[in-house]
Amino acid sequence: SGKSPDIVAMAQAARAGGSLTVAITNTADSPLVRASDYAIDILAGPELSVAATKTFVNSAVAGLALMAHSTGDDKLLAALARLPEHFRKAIACDWMALAGALETQKSLFILGRGPSAAIANEAALKFKETCAMHAEAYSAAEVMHGPLALVGPGFPVLALAARDASEPSVADAADRLASKGAAVFVTSNKAKSAQRLPHVATGHPLTDPLTLIVSFYG
Amino acid sequence: SGKSPDIVAMAQAARAGGSLTVAITNTADSPLVRASDYAIDILAGPELSVAATKTFVNSAVAGLALMAHSTGDDKLLAALARLPEHFRKAIACDWMALAGALETQKSLFILGRGPSAAIANEAALKFKETCAMHAEAYSAAEVMHGPLALVGPGFPVLALAARDASEPSVADAADRLASKGAAVFVTSNKAKSAQRLPHVATGHPLTDPLTLIVSFYG
Repeated sequence: SGKSPDIVAMAQAARAGGSLTVAITNTADSPLVRASDYAIDILAGPELSVAATKTFVNSAVAGLALMAHSTGDDKLLAALARLPEHFRKAIACDWMALAGALETQKSLFILGRGPSAAIANEAALKFKETCAMHAEAYSAAEVMHGPLALVGPGFPVLALAARDASEPSVADAADRLASKGAAVFVTSNKAKSAQRLPHVATGHPLTDPLTLIVSFYG
Repeated sequence: SGKSPDIVAMAQAARAGGSLTVAITNTADSPLVRASDYAIDILAGPELSVAATKTFVNSAVAGLALMAHSTGDDKLLAALARLPEHFRKAIACDWMALAGALETQKSLFILGRGPSAAIANEAALKFKETCAMHAEAYSAAEVMHGPLALVGPGFPVLALAARDASEPSVADAADRLASKGAAVFVTSNKAKSAQRLPHVATGHPLTDPLTLIVSFYG
């Protein structure tokens, strides 16, 4: 909505400090837009669901497009151009096996690493908001040791692996948690014992996390 | 132990990039020390408990001391000199009321903000490791909206407020969660409805979080 006072204050402070400020917004006439040098309208239309989904995805796409254009990154631009077709396939991915594992549980972990760690945080927030389940996002690099104490037989884990340098480590973490009897689901064919979820590769590591969150919402 | 390969690799990369590297360690002869330009031995002695506590506190003290000496911060140095007496009082603080609220619960939130957010993360990790309870740390600035969906009557919340600029906002978050019927405990006299826990002020915002974690361990 572009009204959060802390975000508006941060934009004002950045601008006062001499920074170039760009608002990414779904509300073209908002305090955030007025506080910024430029604004990108993500044109997501009215957000009708209780928990925002399309504004999240469109904001991330707008941020990536801004980055790709400003750095002249042709590979990322090409991946962004193909996203609509990839999103269509991602919505069709069937993740209902995950739902079955959650039925009797109160808690779960959602793993990512690098850009997919941000997506894991978004998915965990949605679980809290819409399912009243205690989902916590962890970096796959940090979930061993202490947090492992919670993971026993049947404990659900969703590991969101993208086609990037972190994929082997996310798949490995998924397998290690599965070896403790956890109900682990992973979006990688590199995993051996964790249950694989269907996923759509986008040809670029920075757009892969977006098809993952679309399959999650779907 | 100074053996974690990722930490050692980071120190090596920083040194190779021309950075001055200082290892803070409880093991004077370790791969991390050999990878660094300088080393500070925190002299915590053998860590006997299953979950590290004194090495955590001593590492934080060593880091603050290094910062205070390198910047000539006399106020922080004075606060560090008084820490032993403050730690004695902090250990004696009775937080057993919190334990009572946890008895029948599986999940809790631990809030902080700024430096005390780091302490909230440490406390949440210890809950997972030693109590197998799903404790999640949140910034008091971020816990409203989505995460709020988990907080109902009896849901335990520990709000770790230090005597710093964030204290009013942490106390306010504690009161707002208490108004939803949550079992909220807070280390601030600024809270009105959340239950206050005894706490030791250290005269400096950066040392206050350390007495909080000592009371928590105690």
